[in-house]
Amino acid sequence: DSVKIGILTISDRVSEGVATDTSGPHLIEKSKELFNGCCTFYQIVPDEIERIRDALLEWCNEGFELIFTTGGTGFSERDVTPEATKMVIEREAPGISTQLIVEGLAKTPLASLSRGVAGIKGRSLIINLPGSLKAVKEGFEILSQVIPHAISILRT
Amino acid sequence: DSVKIGILTISDRVSEGVATDTSGPHLIEKSKELFNGCCTFYQIVPDEIERIRDALLEWCNEGFELIFTTGGTGFSERDVTPEATKMVIEREAPGISTQLIVEGLAKTPLASLSRGVAGIKGRSLIINLPGSLKAVKEGFEILSQVIPHAISILRT
Amino acid sequence: DSVKIGILTISDRVSEGVATDTSGPHLIEKSKELFNGCCTFYQIVPDEIERIRDALLEWCNEGFELIFTTGGTGFSERDVTPEATKMVIEREAPGISTQLIVEGLAKTPLASLSRGVAGIKGRSLIINLPGSLKAVKEGFEILSQVIPHAISILRT
Ligand code: NA
Repeated sequence: DSVKIGILTISDRVSEGVATDTSGPHLIEKSKELFNGCCTFYQIVPDEIERIRDALLEWCNEGFELIFTTGGTGFSERDVTPEATKMVIEREAPGISTQLIVEGLAKTPLASLSRGVAGIKGRSLIINLPGSLKAVKEGFEILSQVIPHAISILRT
Repeated sequence: DSVKIGILTISDRVSEGVATDTSGPHLIEKSKELFNGCCTFYQIVPDEIERIRDALLEWCNEGFELIFTTGGTGFSERDVTPEATKMVIEREAPGISTQLIVEGLAKTPLASLSRGVAGIKGRSLIINLPGSLKAVKEGFEILSQVIPHAISILRT
Repeated sequence: DSVKIGILTISDRVSEGVATDTSGPHLIEKSKELFNGCCTFYQIVPDEIERIRDALLEWCNEGFELIFTTGGTGFSERDVTPEATKMVIEREAPGISTQLIVEGLAKTPLASLSRGVAGIKGRSLIINLPGSLKAVKEGFEILSQVIPHAISILRT
């Protein structure tokens, strides 16, 4: 069966049309490469906790197996993606966010400023990635070795 | 005084008698080596959150100083060891699970898929290890340098 | 504008006057170096959860942008700094504590025994460091590359 993957871009500026999303499209492209023939879905929401939570819940309830978020993991007042994600997940997967930080630190000390989390609701795995295209590229690369394995376990 | 150590194997299949536990016996053997003359106790429970929680609580209340769990830290639906452990611990020790992931990543990228936690209830230290014998061997090795120190502080 | 920084030393023994604080003064000195012309405030409280919580809340409410705690992050019964900090913070910043552990492990395996957390309340960033002068020196050094960036984002 083909994997159902959601890419949720979280950004006030993209949402308002004053910035162009490059991180979301990159995740769509790379997801299609990694999961040959997967279905990808794409949505943009502003940095509002209820909007993020509801988008995640809807996709989990529709049986999405993998959801990447990009954006909203930083220190500015509007960054609430991890808090919205924690409202949704039932079981945390801290190893994934730890791996992103640890391997990210090899490239830049600023990797420690991502507050992203990861976790499971039902059979859906949700992973927060930062907003910048550079961080998303590196993050996807880091995780590409483990995500297919995680998804295959969640399917059993 | 000799250290009272509990080894809790968490596995539906071992519990039902359709698989043999090798990780639990390894932890017993290695604990006896590390803490010369320690008392080890061993129990097997299925992947049920209340059964895990109750086994941990009983051992904490009986003054166990160190409890290793093995199993139930992964992504499958039945894996709830971290959730049961979080119901019991009063003070988290995230550095221990971080160390397991970081040093585990040096051996395999799949180390990030362990969701294990560690923490303290009263004077008992509880540490979740994965179920596989390989991961348990590596995890014990990683922690053998720090656990005696942690136990000596908890005793004071 | 100059950055308002609080240094909170948490120690029964320093509080009772039977030990001298060297970690707090080190953090004051290094903070002044890193943030040229910053205002530093210094306080000592015993290892009591309400006292720690109240000191942190007061400084957050007074607009402190950065608060370092030193002490109370270990395994002894009186160590409750992370628990008090979690009562105050609204948004966790787990990457910071992960960075401290990961880079600390390069110096000593005992780095995993710090239970310190980091997080944000409003526009205040709170970071737990261990009590020992050696760990505080290393921790400040590790974080000195990322803290100015974090503060500049919190200000926007
Ligand atoms: Na962590």
